[in-house]
Amino acid sequence: MKHGANIYKYAKKIGCEPEDMLDFSSNINAYQKEIQVKLSSSLIQKYADSSYSELKEVVAKRYSIKTEQIALFNGATSAIFALFSSLKAKSVYLYAPLYGEYEKAAVATKKHIYKINRLAENPYIPEDDSIVVFVNPSTPEGYYEEDLAEMMQEWIERDCTIVIDESFLEFEALASMRERINGYKRLFIIQSFSKFYGCAGVRIGAIFAHKKAIKKLQIPLWNISSLDSAFLQERMADETFVEQSLLFQKVQKAELIEILESSKLFDDIVESESNFILTHSLRAEEIFKHLLEHKILVRSCGSFDYLSNEWLRFGVKDVTMHKRLQEALLALA
Amino acid sequence: MKHGANIYKYAKKIGCEPEDMLDFSSNINAYQKEIQVKLSSSLIQKYADSSYSELKEVVAKRYSIKTEQIALFNGATSAIFALFSSLKAKSVYLYAPLYGEYEKAAVATKKHIYKINRLAENPYIPEDDSIVVFVNPSTPEGYYEEDLAEMMQEWIERDCTIVIDESFLEFEALASMRERINGYKRLFIIQSFSKFYGCAGVRIGAIFAHKKAIKKLQIPLWNISSLDSAFLQERMADETFVEQSLLFQKVQKAELIEILESSKLFDDIVESESNFILTHSLRAEEIFKHLLEHKILVRSCGSFDYLSNEWLRFGVKDVTMHKRLQEALLALA
Repeated sequence: MKHGANIYKYAKKIGCEPEDMLDFSSNINAYQKEIQVKLSSSLIQKYADSSYSELKEVVAKRYSIKTEQIALFNGATSAIFALFSSLKAKSVYLYAPLYGEYEKAAVATKKHIYKINRLAENPYIPEDDSIVVFVNPSTPEGYYEEDLAEMMQEWIERDCTIVIDESFLEFEALASMRERINGYKRLFIIQSFSKFYGCAGVRIGAIFAHKKAIKKLQIPLWNISSLDSAFLQERMADETFVEQSLLFQKVQKAELIEILESSKLFDDIVESESNFILTHSLRAEEIFKHLLEHKILVRSCGSFDYLSNEWLRFGVKDVTMHKRLQEALLALA
Repeated sequence: MKHGANIYKYAKKIGCEPEDMLDFSSNINAYQKEIQVKLSSSLIQKYADSSYSELKEVVAKRYSIKTEQIALFNGATSAIFALFSSLKAKSVYLYAPLYGEYEKAAVATKKHIYKINRLAENPYIPEDDSIVVFVNPSTPEGYYEEDLAEMMQEWIERDCTIVIDESFLEFEALASMRERINGYKRLFIIQSFSKFYGCAGVRIGAIFAHKKAIKKLQIPLWNISSLDSAFLQERMADETFVEQSLLFQKVQKAELIEILESSKLFDDIVESESNFILTHSLRAEEIFKHLLEHKILVRSCGSFDYLSNEWLRFGVKDVTMHKRLQEALLALA
């Protein structure tokens, strides 16, 4: 599965600049706040403390865990590759659909891959000693699995290594599995910071796990940019940003749903607990092309397992972007 | 071998702030120039073009190669780990002493490790189909091997994979092996950009190789910070920075050698074609401790293969730092 966010390709295709495109395909927090951090010569020129201890303190405080339970990587994708490289298990069970990076990491580390269709009634049960990957809330639907603890109990009884991706958990302040890392040494929480903290260009992601599991990971020296670290430390400690983001998410998600519903173009608008909305329409390919002509890029979900191009995903954006989307949809209805 | 640059550890040890230490242990270009690049919201918030094509264009121009011959990583260390992961050969021949990262990457990828003592008369010849790693100019001496082309011929006849690390080549604009990548698909040039471009906090490094070899590398999506990319694009295209750095290196290296010689504390000051000077003294441990009391950190070379703590390495720095070093050395002489 290819990654969706490719405004560069589509901008070229329709002959406009990438910055003129409205990107509804990405699922980055659209709440914007002025950035205060300054580029200092010393940040650029000097080697950082290679344990990134100041950044870890901020992350530990925000997520209520200990610094020794944190491994930092240059983005969640790098974290996933590093984790899979360190795991000896030969089989990976992916609850699909999910991001393509898990499958790529499984291929790169030569593991067998089994996909469990989350959307089907009777999910398959992973075999003993395998790796299980579950994204909560899920993408592309934004579904939050309330019964994850029960499912995990079954995996634990089978001695599985459990990977829970919580990259979209913070948009609605949902309950995390983080507190379980002390009780099960084979539980790994993947956390991208790009999504909620609104910084796709800043490459920092984390693995949260038992401190003994963290120690076993191979992390290249100085894998994080000092500029990125300075930005994230400031952003993560900014409580106003967090509060305003939660409020923005609530108001803007409702607005987006209202726009999609009132367009009457979709026969299904999936309930979401994240900052994107999955829709279904038999006219989806026509809608996709029409929006593209209006320089609006949405996520066509044909590359997600078990879905098709009849499914479109819309990111929650600000009032201005929503208005442009509404106008474009009205022109089609 | 541990990395030397650890001002954080030593600052704590002597009870001062890391920014109050004079770091002669690092080998980052000490020529300073005001940074013009601005942190823009769009750089932070948006996903970068995942092929980093603008940055690759700048790198291609600077190093006179093609963009498809370049793979970019978040630092040379990540490049080395990714390269070793992709290579099937089971044995690695390291021309030592060299940085510790190659050995770590060989261990992480479970390869046999043979070390060839560069400093001895009769170097061992690598076996067929193995990986050979050679750093040119070398560290910690800054020795530039003029006969590398002849040595390579022998390795090519043995079908070896050849890894040449040229991270210190630009300080004296020495001849590169880059132009050979088209002729031998198993030649990989490792290039750190942190050293010459004076940006240890900016995490970008490269592999230059035949385009078919580049395609086989596993590179995690969005592995580079957009802020780092913006900085490096500006810095690398800045011809004044390059010219001034070469001039600075010439003048300041001569000054550093003069200071070391006139102190009469060293029985050997090794000729260097890079931005650091290796010295030998039976009093080296005393010198190291004395300088530390003056908040000056130098690189004690006991952790380099075939060397001992009698060897100290001094980075080429600016006039102010050299003056402080000179005063501290005089107090001991």
